[in-house]
Amino acid sequence: MTRTIPLAQHIFTRLRQLNCLSIHGVPGDFFLRALDHLKPTGVRWIGNANELCAGYAADGYARAGWAHSPVSPDLWKPPRVGALLTTYGVGELSAINAIAGAWAENVPVVHIVGTPSRKLWRERRLVHHSPGDGRMEIYAEMAKMITCAQADLQTAGSPNEAAAMYDDVVRRCALDSKPVYVQLPSDMVEAGVDATLLERGLELSPPENDAVLQQDIVSHILDRMKYARRPLILADGFAHSAGLAESAYQMAAYTNFRQMCTTSGKGILDEDASTWQGALTGQPGRDDDTDLILHFGPILADTNTAGWSNVPEPTVTISFEKDCVRLDNGKTYNVNSEQVLEALERSCSDFTSEAEPVSPLPQQQPPVLSPTLPITQDNFWPRMSSFVRPFDALLYANGTPLIGSRDMRLPPAVQVIASPIWCSIGQMLPAAQGIAAARRDHRQCGRRTILFEGDGSFQVTCQALSDIIRYELDVTIFLVNNAGYTYERWLNGMTAEYNDVPSWRYTEAARFFGAKDYDPKYPIASGRVKTWGELEAVLNDQNFSNGRGLNIVDVAMAPDDVPEAAKEGLRRGSAALNMPYQ
Amino acid sequence: MTRTIPLAQHIFTRLRQLNCLSIHGVPGDFFLRALDHLKPTGVRWIGNANELCAGYAADGYARAGWAHSPVSPDLWKPPRVGALLTTYGVGELSAINAIAGAWAENVPVVHIVGTPSRKLWRERRLVHHSPGDGRMEIYAEMAKMITCAQADLQTAGSPNEAAAMYDDVVRRCALDSKPVYVQLPSDMVEAGVDATLLERGLELSPPENDAVLQQDIVSHILDRMKYARRPLILADGFAHSAGLAESAYQMAAYTNFRQMCTTSGKGILDEDASTWQGALTGQPGRDDDTDLILHFGPILADTNTAGWSNVPEPTVTISFEKDCVRLDNGKTYNVNSEQVLEALERSCSDFTSEAEPVSPLPQQQPPVLSPTLPITQDNFWPRMSSFVRPFDALLYANGTPLIGSRDMRLPPAVQVIASPIWCSIGQMLPAAQGIAAARRDHRQCGRRTILFEGDGSFQVTCQALSDIIRYELDVTIFLVNNAGYTYERWLNGMTAEYNDVPSWRYTEAARFFGAKDYDPKYPIASGRVKTWGELEAVLNDQNFSNGRGLNIVDVAMAPDDVPEAAKEGLRRGSAALNMPYQ
Repeated sequence: MTRTIPLAQHIFTRLRQLNCLSIHGVPGDFFLRALDHLKPTGVRWIGNANELCAGYAADGYARAGWAHSPVSPDLWKPPRVGALLTTYGVGELSAINAIAGAWAENVPVVHIVGTPSRKLWRERRLVHHSPGDGRMEIYAEMAKMITCAQADLQTAGSPNEAAAMYDDVVRRCALDSKPVYVQLPSDMVEAGVDATLLERGLELSPPENDAVLQQDIVSHILDRMKYARRPLILADGFAHSAGLAESAYQMAAYTNFRQMCTTSGKGILDEDASTWQGALTGQPGRDDDTDLILHFGPILADTNTAGWSNVPEPTVTISFEKDCVRLDNGKTYNVNSEQVLEALERSCSDFTSEAEPVSPLPQQQPPVLSPTLPITQDNFWPRMSSFVRPFDALLYANGTPLIGSRDMRLPPAVQVIASPIWCSIGQMLPAAQGIAAARRDHRQCGRRTILFEGDGSFQVTCQALSDIIRYELDVTIFLVNNAGYTYERWLNGMTAEYNDVPSWRYTEAARFFGAKDYDPKYPIASGRVKTWGELEAVLNDQNFSNGRGLNIVDVAMAPDDVPEAAKEGLRRGSAALNMPYQ
Repeated sequence: MTRTIPLAQHIFTRLRQLNCLSIHGVPGDFFLRALDHLKPTGVRWIGNANELCAGYAADGYARAGWAHSPVSPDLWKPPRVGALLTTYGVGELSAINAIAGAWAENVPVVHIVGTPSRKLWRERRLVHHSPGDGRMEIYAEMAKMITCAQADLQTAGSPNEAAAMYDDVVRRCALDSKPVYVQLPSDMVEAGVDATLLERGLELSPPENDAVLQQDIVSHILDRMKYARRPLILADGFAHSAGLAESAYQMAAYTNFRQMCTTSGKGILDEDASTWQGALTGQPGRDDDTDLILHFGPILADTNTAGWSNVPEPTVTISFEKDCVRLDNGKTYNVNSEQVLEALERSCSDFTSEAEPVSPLPQQQPPVLSPTLPITQDNFWPRMSSFVRPFDALLYANGTPLIGSRDMRLPPAVQVIASPIWCSIGQMLPAAQGIAAARRDHRQCGRRTILFEGDGSFQVTCQALSDIIRYELDVTIFLVNNAGYTYERWLNGMTAEYNDVPSWRYTEAARFFGAKDYDPKYPIASGRVKTWGELEAVLNDQNFSNGRGLNIVDVAMAPDDVPEAAKEGLRRGSAALNMPYQ
């Protein structure tokens, strides 16, 4: 006789097999009983304060899998997916912004929705959380637009078939690095599934490239590499999800080509290397004569390229994407880029190049300033560079932190999370919760999770701080407090009231959101700094800099302050946005 | 020469003409400049902390238009719509749960989305907030599923045509009492529109019913009314949006029929009348022999009918909906119910009935309890009845407050907002902000806005409290603090950790969210009560009971406490939900 397990147990166990050890969500009546089946699977429930936070946290958890080689290699089995569990209608729609963001930015998130029982679907009764008109399926139709695979388990002919449908979409999630959508009717949670189905692992390797085609591509690229005089390796934001970050790093090492990055490609390359040239700036005269770009994980979004203005336009660009290589002959080859790059590296054992020698960037010196001076954007970000350590995860909120991130020079093996396309304010605090949860799950506790937050962003998803405290996650937060939407001020309405945000007492946040007054196991520190001296004192405090527990620094800056170097780009953006009607 | 005004000014002025004097939202780059055109229109911008709160607030603002005849009749021009302004993609998707709720519950909300310029649409460039794959239109496709009319202004041939398209959907919003969706490209904000277009008002009257058909319907209903022995007037949640609340009240007065309500129909009828029989309970033996129901604005959702169990099934049911009347002959007549009911009332000047006399319900006496006793659900709600005054607005959070609302007996002219279908936790705090804003806009300051909130609900949308404080709105909050999702506990997992919520310091909420320490213009009071005596002290405090400023009472109750009368229904719901797989 076949041993069976509840379908819910099958579902959660598959997540564990993909190294996803926490599932985020908010309880909902249609799936409460599923949570009773977590225990034997070793997957933990993280109950968030709301579903948007849960969605961003699941996205962050998945991105944690893109981190560099770890502090404790034996324990680091990178998560292949993040997971979200919400209720039908109200729950899933509250999270849809996060799922759409995962779609836009290639993040593998499994979104499971607890739906009404099959009986209620059949009878089309007026059930709560439905749109009230019998069209119970419209949320699934919405989800279809922003997920790469869907499984409505009520359509399965048997519990085993439901398990197989689920396995298939989860596999697609990990393989395609895109979100997927699963509907689990309340009456199927405990359907008995053949326990041995889990013994067969999911096939997660992409197919092998055609050897001949691959050799042609490699030869073509090698040829271009050999004769380029001003070649450039450009690390971009989709290198992570395409599995190309390591290849980019290696190629920069063995070619000695100049190396640069976009904002979202920060942290991939070695910023200590003599060939490191910083983030793209679009300054005329600097990159004009580039004659070859090897572009890893390109994202040609306005927000990732200063309005499409800072990517040099050489005669030869070769782009490596997840499932294709684009050559300068105008052709796109549907091959796995990772395999192409491995073959390229093997062919490069005796690589010689005609590239001109590269002048190293001057070292970035932390500014030394009078302790009574106010903190400015131009000084803050370079100072933060020396606070960062290898293996830190850095998250940059959309707004001035995203702008400022460009001005930091990072030590090796830092993971940077900066949204290149989605640019949703409020994303990064819950994402930090997800990153920190993944690090805790995999005992990567030497790694700090550091969030550069904005005050406007914090107000969008502030309850995520409660989730961080509830699950005692290690997170350090620098809250850039400039009394409003400074990024927007530069686009329109520099002093307009609509760009203000109310002044919260951020130093009391942890206390309000439920932190204990004193807990040696989970220390909490909060402070407000207005001057350079106050900031230095915090940064030099050992208890703060170890990154344990929750640390929040409310950093006062002027409402109109942005880095000097960003002003021209913002002026251009403002002009484009406020173009008159024609 | 024609005088022109910016399209944005046209858009906002139309809202003012519909008595919508505040527009809710979060600033976004694609529409910042539109906000510069608010001033001449007299419409105010309310900048919320996030878009979900803004959406719920706009929904609340629209529902404020359903309030009873006012304290200051001259100033009360009920809002015909609420309005929401968000940015493309990230902003609109964050609010989509609120818009879908407005769809399900027939609330007229105009959702305007600031979209990329027409040039960016034409070129399909990879713009931020887009899904990253060129399918820039998918958010509009989602919105189409949950709005009754849409206008993409970039498709207009001229600015005047854009204005006409906008006018048409706004008209549909008010007339159909459903949300609508408008896309305003950033480069059209200042397009010049003929200023005289605004001189023509929108046609908001429904067409006249066919006189002969209407007379037939009226005769049929009159006939049924004359011979019923145990007739019942049943006020339900869609009576408000259908414009039938006043008719229901009047019919109850002139017929002397028994009158009852569903949870969402509370506040429509006269609960002091001798014919008042309370909310539907489904107690066997009580309503079994009803032989006629006149059902106003029916909502036959599980959550509005105790799982479809408490609506009596008489031989004759006549239902009045917004656009139809359903008679007991099985036929549905597509007529305007309001006009039918007016005609019915005119025919009833000499109405006589064979209905049996009705025994009045016993008066509800506020419980008198020892001051040291803890506060229980069974005592709390009846006590609240005597705190409520005419013209109060009462909002009941989804969860135990929604259950408890049934046990309150209300004075006349109270507006009740209780979600009958959507049941989204977190809705009611921002909705209270919207209601309070509408009351302030229309100088209905004698009216209190009282929210019965849950702790789980509060955590979902807590930042709405900051919006209330920022705009100095008058709101009183009773926070039923039972340390978790008590409603869910009764369905599954009575002591399960997944039904817990972390313990926040709610009495410090106003301070954390930016309230001034002392402001005589906007007083703030917070307190925590655990015993009956502490609760009484708060309720009897004049400064508290006047409802001015912000008042928050954190009311401690046991995690498993629900009203005794609700337990049987919850047990049935639990059994239905946890039905095994077959």
